[in-house]
Amino acid sequence: MPDPLVTLTTDFGDASPYVASMKGVLLGINPAARLVDLSHRIPPQDIRFADYFLAAAIPCFPPGVLHVVVVDPGVGTERNILYVELDGHRLLVPDNGCWTTLEKQSSGPPVVHRVSEPRYWRHPVSATFHGRDIFAPVAGHLSLGLAPDFVGPVVTEWARLQARPPRFDDDRREWIGEVIFVDEFGNLITNLAPSVLDGPAKVTVAGQLISRQVRTYGEAEAGTLVVLISSTGIVEIAVAGGSAANLLRSKVGTQVIVAK
Amino acid sequence: MPDPLVTLTTDFGDASPYVASMKGVLLGINPAARLVDLSHRIPPQDIRFADYFLAAAIPCFPPGVLHVVVVDPGVGTERNILYVELDGHRLLVPDNGCWTTLEKQSSGPPVVHRVSEPRYWRHPVSATFHGRDIFAPVAGHLSLGLAPDFVGPVVTEWARLQARPPRFDDDRREWIGEVIFVDEFGNLITNLAPSVLDGPAKVTVAGQLISRQVRTYGEAEAGTLVVLISSTGIVEIAVAGGSAANLLRSKVGTQVIVAK
Amino acid sequence: MPDPLVTLTTDFGDASPYVASMKGVLLGINPAARLVDLSHRIPPQDIRFADYFLAAAIPCFPPGVLHVVVVDPGVGTERNILYVELDGHRLLVPDNGCWTTLEKQSSGPPVVHRVSEPRYWRHPVSATFHGRDIFAPVAGHLSLGLAPDFVGPVVTEWARLQARPPRFDDDRREWIGEVIFVDEFGNLITNLAPSVLDGPAKVTVAGQLISRQVRTYGEAEAGTLVVLISSTGIVEIAVAGGSAANLLRSKVGTQVIVAK
Repeated sequence: MPDPLVTLTTDFGDASPYVASMKGVLLGINPAARLVDLSHRIPPQDIRFADYFLAAAIPCFPPGVLHVVVVDPGVGTERNILYVELDGHRLLVPDNGCWTTLEKQSSGPPVVHRVSEPRYWRHPVSATFHGRDIFAPVAGHLSLGLAPDFVGPVVTEWARLQARPPRFDDDRREWIGEVIFVDEFGNLITNLAPSVLDGPAKVTVAGQLISRQVRTYGEAEAGTLVVLISSTGIVEIAVAGGSAANLLRSKVGTQVIVAK
Repeated sequence: MPDPLVTLTTDFGDASPYVASMKGVLLGINPAARLVDLSHRIPPQDIRFADYFLAAAIPCFPPGVLHVVVVDPGVGTERNILYVELDGHRLLVPDNGCWTTLEKQSSGPPVVHRVSEPRYWRHPVSATFHGRDIFAPVAGHLSLGLAPDFVGPVVTEWARLQARPPRFDDDRREWIGEVIFVDEFGNLITNLAPSVLDGPAKVTVAGQLISRQVRTYGEAEAGTLVVLISSTGIVEIAVAGGSAANLLRSKVGTQVIVAK
Repeated sequence: MPDPLVTLTTDFGDASPYVASMKGVLLGINPAARLVDLSHRIPPQDIRFADYFLAAAIPCFPPGVLHVVVVDPGVGTERNILYVELDGHRLLVPDNGCWTTLEKQSSGPPVVHRVSEPRYWRHPVSATFHGRDIFAPVAGHLSLGLAPDFVGPVVTEWARLQARPPRFDDDRREWIGEVIFVDEFGNLITNLAPSVLDGPAKVTVAGQLISRQVRTYGEAEAGTLVVLISSTGIVEIAVAGGSAANLLRSKVGTQVIVAK
C-alpha cells in the first residue's frame, strides 16, 4: 500500500515561511507522508473562495486522502477546528463554513469531530499560527493512522456559509446571478445552473449582451464573448482566446442576468 | 524500484482548482504516482513559452519520467492529444506544437501516439477541461504501466511551431534576433546563438548599446548591462544585480541586434 | 525507512524552467528522492529575506532532511557553496550569509564543508546556473548517502550577514526597530523582541500610534490596527481582517518605534 497522501490548501501565498513550517511539522510526525500542494493562493481569508475551490477539487480525489485546509481568519479565537469525513474524503478544516458546498454535494451525512485534544498539538501553541501548531501535527498523527476519536469528540453542529443562490425576478422575467470565481484565463464562473439557458435566454454581463453559446472556447473566433457550461457544470462566460474578466471589467460579485 | 514519477506543467495558475482536480484524478487511478510540479505559471495559452520551457527543463530529467503538459487553447476542438516518446522521455501533450524544440534537439525520431481510446478517460468528458478528464486519467494509467498502444494508434504527423530564427541583414551586416523569454530576475534570453558574438559584435537592445561581455552576472559592477551565454547556451542580456527587462523596458519579442 | 526528503528554496519564481531543471537533475541522480517545495518566491537575490525564511521554516523540520537553498546573486563568482550540518538539519547553500540567523539560533556549532569536488557536479558547469549544475547533483548524491567528506573539505570560516538589531535611543527613551518581513496578509513582522512591550509602550509605525495589543487577529474589530507577538515570537503589527502593509503604506525597512 502506498504511503499516505496529505494535501495542503492555504491562503498563505508562496513567499512566506508558513507553508514550509507546516510541511516541516507534519513530516516531523510522519516522515512517510506524501504531501501534495493543492493551492496556497486562496485569496487571503476568503472563505467563499475556499468553499468553491474545495467543492471543485476534493471530489476528484480518491477516498482516504487527508485534506488539510488553512483559510482561517478566526485563528486563535473561539472558532473550532474540525476533522470531517464525508463520502470517504477526510478534511481538517477551521469551522468557518469553508466546506459548505462540499457537504451539500455529498451523498450522505458527514461524521465530524471537534479537534480538542492537545496531546497531538505542537506546544506552545501560537495564537496566530494554528496551521503549524494544530493542523499540521494533527494531520501527521491522523496520517499515521490515529483513530479520529482521539483528536476530539463527535459534534453535530458546525458553521455553514449562507447560500447566495441566484434569484428570479418575476416582473422582469429574468434570472439574476453573479460571478463566483474568475480563473487564470479570465473566465467567469457564475452561480447559475445550466437550466437557465434552456429555451430563450439573453445573457447580459456588465451591460453587454452575450449572444453566442458554445460547447468549448475554440469553437468561436478569437475575441468572441461566449456563454458555455463550465467543467464543474455551471454557467460560464468566456472570451475565445482572451479574458472575459478584462473585456467585461468583471470580477467576483459582478451580476450576470439571464432574461427569459 | 521507486514509484513512478509524473510531472505537471500547466498554464492554470495556482489559484484555481484545476491543478488540484488533475492531481486528484491522477492519484485516483494510480495512488502510488509521485507528482512533481514543474510550473503552473506558463502564461495563459502561450504555446511558444511552453515550447521554450519544455526544451530547457525536460532534458534535465532521467528517462522514463512521464511529463504531462496542459497548455491547451484548443481544448475541446478537433485538435488531438498526443503521447510522445523521445530520447526516453515520455510526454502527454496537446497537439499544438508545444514540443517542437524538444523534437529538434532530440537524438532520434520520436514515437507518437494519438490519444483516442476513451476507455481510459474520465466520463462524462467536459469540453473545456481535458486536463482533468483525459490527460490526468491517461497519465494515471500510463504510470501504472499501460502499454502506449492501448491509448491510441501511432501517428506520423503532428503540429509544429513555425521557427522564428534570427535573420542576418546583409546590407547592414547585422543579426536581428529577439527576446524569447524573460526570467524572474529580468534576464532577457534571446534566440541568438553564441557564435554571433564571435569576432567584432556590437549588441544593441532598445537603442542601448551593451558593450560589456561577461561569463557570469557577478563579474560586473551592480547596475551594469552585460551580454553573456545563458545556462541553456544562447545569448542572454542581463543587468548585474538588477533587471534588464526593467532597465531596457524589454519583453518577449523585443528586437536584439548584433552588428558585425 | 521512508525515502530521503530533499526540500527546495529558491528565488527562481514559478514561471521559469530553472526549478524544473533542478528537480530533473536531482531525480536523475536519486530517483527515489522525495522533493518538497518550500518556496520559489524568495524575492530575487534577497539574502536577508532568505535568512528570515530559513530561520522560521527549517527548525520545524525533523533532523536529517536535506535543504537545498539557491538564492545566489554571486553565482559563478568566487563565492563558495557550503554543505552545513547544524542541529541535525542539513543545508546546501551559497556562502552568502543566508543561514546567519539559523546559526545564531542553533544549540551547537555547525559542521561546514566547502563544496569543491567536481566529480559530483553536472558538466559542463554553466557559470550562471549552479542550481542545476552543482546544487542539484550534489544534493542528489548526498541524499543517496554520500558522506559529506566527499563533497569537499571542512572549513571554519564563512560569510555572515551583519546584524541589524533595533537600537535604544536613550534621550528619547524609545526603541527604534524596523519591519523585516511582510506576509501575504500584509502583517508586518519586526525585529523587536516581545520584551520591548513590557511596561508602558507606545508603538508607532509611519506616524500612526497603534494602541491596541492583542493575542490574535480576531480579538479586535475588523479594521483595527493591533500589536501582537508573531508566531515566531517577535513583535508584529497587523490589521484585524485587513492589511497593515496597505493601511500604513509600510514595507521591509519601515521604522517601528516603541516609546517607553
